[in-house]
Amino acid sequence: MKKLIIIVLLLGSTVVLTYSQKKIVNLPDLPGYVTLKCDFHLHTVFSDGNIWPTMRIAEAYRNGLDAISITDHIEYSPKKDYIPIDHNAAWKITQNAAKEANLILVHGAEITRDMPPGHFNALFINDASALVKDSVIDVVEEAIRQGAFIQWNHPGWNAQQPDGIPRMYDIHYKLIEKGWLHGIEFFNDSEYYPLVLTFCRKYNLAVMGNSDNHWVISEDYQQPENTNRPMTLVFAKERTHDSLKEAMFAGRTLVYFKDMLAGKEEYAKPFFYQCISVGKVFHQSDNNIYFEVTNKSDIPFYLVNGAAPAPEYITLAANSVTRIVVSKKVTSPLLYDVRNVLTGENEVLKVELKY
Amino acid sequence: MKKLIIIVLLLGSTVVLTYSQKKIVNLPDLPGYVTLKCDFHLHTVFSDGNIWPTMRIAEAYRNGLDAISITDHIEYSPKKDYIPIDHNAAWKITQNAAKEANLILVHGAEITRDMPPGHFNALFINDASALVKDSVIDVVEEAIRQGAFIQWNHPGWNAQQPDGIPRMYDIHYKLIEKGWLHGIEFFNDSEYYPLVLTFCRKYNLAVMGNSDNHWVISEDYQQPENTNRPMTLVFAKERTHDSLKEAMFAGRTLVYFKDMLAGKEEYAKPFFYQCISVGKVFHQSDNNIYFEVTNKSDIPFYLVNGAAPAPEYITLAANSVTRIVVSKKVTSPLLYDVRNVLTGENEVLKVELKY
Amino acid sequence: MKKLIIIVLLLGSTVVLTYSQKKIVNLPDLPGYVTLKCDFHLHTVFSDGNIWPTMRIAEAYRNGLDAISITDHIEYSPKKDYIPIDHNAAWKITQNAAKEANLILVHGAEITRDMPPGHFNALFINDASALVKDSVIDVVEEAIRQGAFIQWNHPGWNAQQPDGIPRMYDIHYKLIEKGWLHGIEFFNDSEYYPLVLTFCRKYNLAVMGNSDNHWVISEDYQQPENTNRPMTLVFAKERTHDSLKEAMFAGRTLVYFKDMLAGKEEYAKPFFYQCISVGKVFHQSDNNIYFEVTNKSDIPFYLVNGAAPAPEYITLAANSVTRIVVSKKVTSPLLYDVRNVLTGENEVLKVELKY
Amino acid sequence: MKKLIIIVLLLGSTVVLTYSQKKIVNLPDLPGYVTLKCDFHLHTVFSDGNIWPTMRIAEAYRNGLDAISITDHIEYSPKKDYIPIDHNAAWKITQNAAKEANLILVHGAEITRDMPPGHFNALFINDASALVKDSVIDVVEEAIRQGAFIQWNHPGWNAQQPDGIPRMYDIHYKLIEKGWLHGIEFFNDSEYYPLVLTFCRKYNLAVMGNSDNHWVISEDYQQPENTNRPMTLVFAKERTHDSLKEAMFAGRTLVYFKDMLAGKEEYAKPFFYQCISVGKVFHQSDNNIYFEVTNKSDIPFYLVNGAAPAPEYITLAANSVTRIVVSKKVTSPLLYDVRNVLTGENEVLKVELKY
Repeated sequence: MKKLIIIVLLLGSTVVLTYSQKKIVNLPDLPGYVTLKCDFHLHTVFSDGNIWPTMRIAEAYRNGLDAISITDHIEYSPKKDYIPIDHNAAWKITQNAAKEANLILVHGAEITRDMPPGHFNALFINDASALVKDSVIDVVEEAIRQGAFIQWNHPGWNAQQPDGIPRMYDIHYKLIEKGWLHGIEFFNDSEYYPLVLTFCRKYNLAVMGNSDNHWVISEDYQQPENTNRPMTLVFAKERTHDSLKEAMFAGRTLVYFKDMLAGKEEYAKPFFYQCISVGKVFHQSDNNIYFEVTNKSDIPFYLVNGAAPAPEYITLAANSVTRIVVSKKVTSPLLYDVRNVLTGENEVLKVELKY
Repeated sequence: MKKLIIIVLLLGSTVVLTYSQKKIVNLPDLPGYVTLKCDFHLHTVFSDGNIWPTMRIAEAYRNGLDAISITDHIEYSPKKDYIPIDHNAAWKITQNAAKEANLILVHGAEITRDMPPGHFNALFINDASALVKDSVIDVVEEAIRQGAFIQWNHPGWNAQQPDGIPRMYDIHYKLIEKGWLHGIEFFNDSEYYPLVLTFCRKYNLAVMGNSDNHWVISEDYQQPENTNRPMTLVFAKERTHDSLKEAMFAGRTLVYFKDMLAGKEEYAKPFFYQCISVGKVFHQSDNNIYFEVTNKSDIPFYLVNGAAPAPEYITLAANSVTRIVVSKKVTSPLLYDVRNVLTGENEVLKVELKY
Repeated sequence: MKKLIIIVLLLGSTVVLTYSQKKIVNLPDLPGYVTLKCDFHLHTVFSDGNIWPTMRIAEAYRNGLDAISITDHIEYSPKKDYIPIDHNAAWKITQNAAKEANLILVHGAEITRDMPPGHFNALFINDASALVKDSVIDVVEEAIRQGAFIQWNHPGWNAQQPDGIPRMYDIHYKLIEKGWLHGIEFFNDSEYYPLVLTFCRKYNLAVMGNSDNHWVISEDYQQPENTNRPMTLVFAKERTHDSLKEAMFAGRTLVYFKDMLAGKEEYAKPFFYQCISVGKVFHQSDNNIYFEVTNKSDIPFYLVNGAAPAPEYITLAANSVTRIVVSKKVTSPLLYDVRNVLTGENEVLKVELKY
Repeated sequence: MKKLIIIVLLLGSTVVLTYSQKKIVNLPDLPGYVTLKCDFHLHTVFSDGNIWPTMRIAEAYRNGLDAISITDHIEYSPKKDYIPIDHNAAWKITQNAAKEANLILVHGAEITRDMPPGHFNALFINDASALVKDSVIDVVEEAIRQGAFIQWNHPGWNAQQPDGIPRMYDIHYKLIEKGWLHGIEFFNDSEYYPLVLTFCRKYNLAVMGNSDNHWVISEDYQQPENTNRPMTLVFAKERTHDSLKEAMFAGRTLVYFKDMLAGKEEYAKPFFYQCISVGKVFHQSDNNIYFEVTNKSDIPFYLVNGAAPAPEYITLAANSVTRIVVSKKVTSPLLYDVRNVLTGENEVLKVELKY
């Protein structure tokens, strides 16, 4: 009779965690694509953030991300009395750390203006210093010249839209017309803007979701339950910088945070079916049929509006198996609305459980 | 700008968890076999346990097990003033619940004698009441007549072996000689007995691990970290009662608890390699090579005794990716002892990381 | 440089937790009274519960309660094929364990009838077997003869009131008239019935809150955050069985669950002020005054409806200190509604923060 | 029957946590003194730390500390390519935030030299820039001139003492002789050096314990269990900067981390008795006496070496009540060693439980 303490000892006394370890974020690939988990909106001490840039790499590694962009403000430098302005500093400091962490690092910056037009992230640039210009149109033009993907940030932020409703102004239409706007944030930190789904569908833009973190990810999102931060899921042909860029310009994204998934139905529908698998009937009683649905993803799915006598509600908990009991009186397909998968401002994904 | 509270609402107000949900225990299959997660030692109010038998089914479902056996004591009935003795009661009460829970239920009972020979579980029996006899040999004979797999329980239990060391007595040799002993518990609750690996190897018996729970599994094992209970992993041809039985008589098992895995090397080695996958080199610096090892199982692996200049220690955390940095001066294979995978009384599994 | 592992060892290897330990539930006494934390509604295998009675004692000890009553159903015995009916069994089995656990054990039983009148707990009885009678009035009369406190259970339970609204029928008025009804459950498990506050005020009855647990407390309430179960707080002159009984008949109770407290204002108001203490101003800036409020209780308080320029909302987190910043322009008292302390069907507690 | 969701709503939808909240660290005062919880060793981006100085204030507030010192390295500035050297920067940046957070801020810096003499923190200085000098003796002299308390940091750090054993060199004796050394770190991050207790006793120095944090406190100490960081407990006459300083020069300290407390017996003994209270005997059986010990502190106490027939081990869990059962055969006092309270290199605190 030996107590298990010996094994605990083993962990504590001799094995030292000298190598970084990362969480596996359980989100499936789509057929033909790899799903890249990305956060394209992060700050550091080089603007109004509060941590050193390499911490963003370490956080992203531990969080299981594939790509990030550090996007310090161009026009807002509250720490400049202590830290001289260098818009490319975070990029220079993190490049090597990103390579060592197997992370795709996207060179970015945040163009920071009053509404309209509000804030934009320029992603995939090569020199943030060139974005210092008076006219915001000139700044966007320069970013485009560098090959940038332009993302409109938090369009309903209440500091710029007190009622929280995103609005498109003349300048936004102009940017769209020129092909100078490529995505809009649906998730920014813990906020979301349903209207963004309408804008993105109408103007064929990528739906984006990011943390916009200024502090520490683990304090803002991961306690007490190790929640994932808000992220953009990009469906890329390969796990490379260029493939990521191609996919974003093509608008192949979904966004994810807590228990909400949002984006275009053409991606949301196959994504849902990749997350779940319906098992065979394992038992029949006089009145009922029993089967299980496995949800191997980190996202729970709340199925609602089932037609009686089928179950009205089914919750497919994350990383779990859910047992379904269906009356033998059910003859029609098991159709449900997935209440936490938004495919439009007022639309949710519709699915069928085939057993 | 809408707060995510809307989604929280969704969870709380309208979606009711009317269907049972089970945890996915992340342990791989072996080539040609399915890994059945089993607990063959459980008590209820029908002997000295403290819960009703159907709770054992509900617990096993939620814990993600494939098979259990409720094994109330034949010779010990401390609640008999309130509950009349019926050695088959738990079996009768749970049969239907087990079917509805997709669980393989093994009819069992615990033969409860002083040492020698100690306690034995008779598994795969059909009538526990027939095991009420004076002579323990007669009881085992009757169990064998019913087709039982005989498991020697907690051979080093300090109530029966004050020094915690399992010992084989004449009666054990006699049982082995007759083919009337098929497995021995290495894990019982939070104890383990390394010597059992020697006995099992020598006499070709199955290595067993069980909870022997008398209370509530979630209170005894799952707090605060949702730890798995001790379990026997049985490598069966199919997920059926008969296939389980065949595999146990064939000795195809490993045992698992907390961060320890134990059993015969012929199963432990392929099991380890099914748990992990070594990724391609993703980065090279002047001096080092970088690659990642993914451990998709719930078991962390503590790799020790690496030969310099290779890393001396590597911990492959459970359900995580571990980044390995190896000096370019390393020319020999990356050989390690896996300190928490026991293949013998004083032996641990030896593995190689091929990148 | 020694690693702290030595201390971890200490915990694991040699110190065995052989003595029971209980949580301290942080809820203050009222001036002149001790606050007894009680659960007067619990089931075991002797009716439709699923655990053995002594587990109710162990749970209550660990949960930091002062008093419990096991109240198995008189008229509902679904396990009678295996367990012969004995309405006093749980009482007999737990008496000694309660003494050893420093718990006040109240002899009780649940009178289990269709609505009207629904279910009643008879508390402080001496023989539950005498409550087996056809007429529910006769049963209550017998309980009263034994000195019982009669509690109306879950008056809005949707199995008996599909719309969830408690209703008083002729029989309830009759019982009140005779002085045969003494309390009503406001909390039952995770449900609550605001109307009960109106009934209790009008007829001068005790507001009650209980778990009505049939399974395992730790699984139903304490995960993942070690939440307290629903409980009745009784303000007794001393921590004794008789003092508890006196206080209940006098109606000196509040009820508590999660972040909600409810009951009569005469108890809720002093209870709130015993929970918190307002510190001195520790800092003044040009525009603001800074002070702290300490909440030493397990209950957070949500203060709302502050009058500008005072803060509109203040959350006094449980077991925490909250820093308050108030504009120097504030001249009137800091008056708030405590949104989670209910003193009436549509009333919440009103308080002032005096700094 | 209303679901509790309404209250959850309340929390989520309308009450915003606009005011900072801090944890209550449960550690008692000593008679005549207030216990100030302090961390005198912290880094920021102004040397080799990775966060902005105001985050140290926010962390300390949330952690329930009374005083901190930010002690960036004088001689080590790895971020100087991006952040110009300013040894007083963190002090200037945090002064106002500290006032608003009710925190005592101690102006400090870390003198960073090879061993001997190793690293020293100069605390209670007024100009860190004046500490830039070639000779370490000159630096200490300047610090002393500013009124500094000199703390020898991590004397057994294995980068400077490969065997982990602290050693005093000529320069240390010289500093002590001049009265220029006032305290030594026993705890530094997760390490501790028992020999420091011998040094401090012999030369009448303060025992110190600090985090030496370079990253984020919550990631390094508070997950998953909200553990307190390493801290120095200073027994001051009042909660003021000057009173703190007086107490430190007088050596009135203990150090605390995880489940270990260390320091001079004259403080450890009364501290222990302030943490616990022994209740009255609440039950006697034929053979045993039952009473409870309440430990209202965050520190568990492991009592060992009880003399039979008294219990050999008693664990007084943190913030809990422990039930003690003592045989009536026990006639002598209940004397114990408190294994996790170190009063000397090889000594632990000895206590008596008087019931």
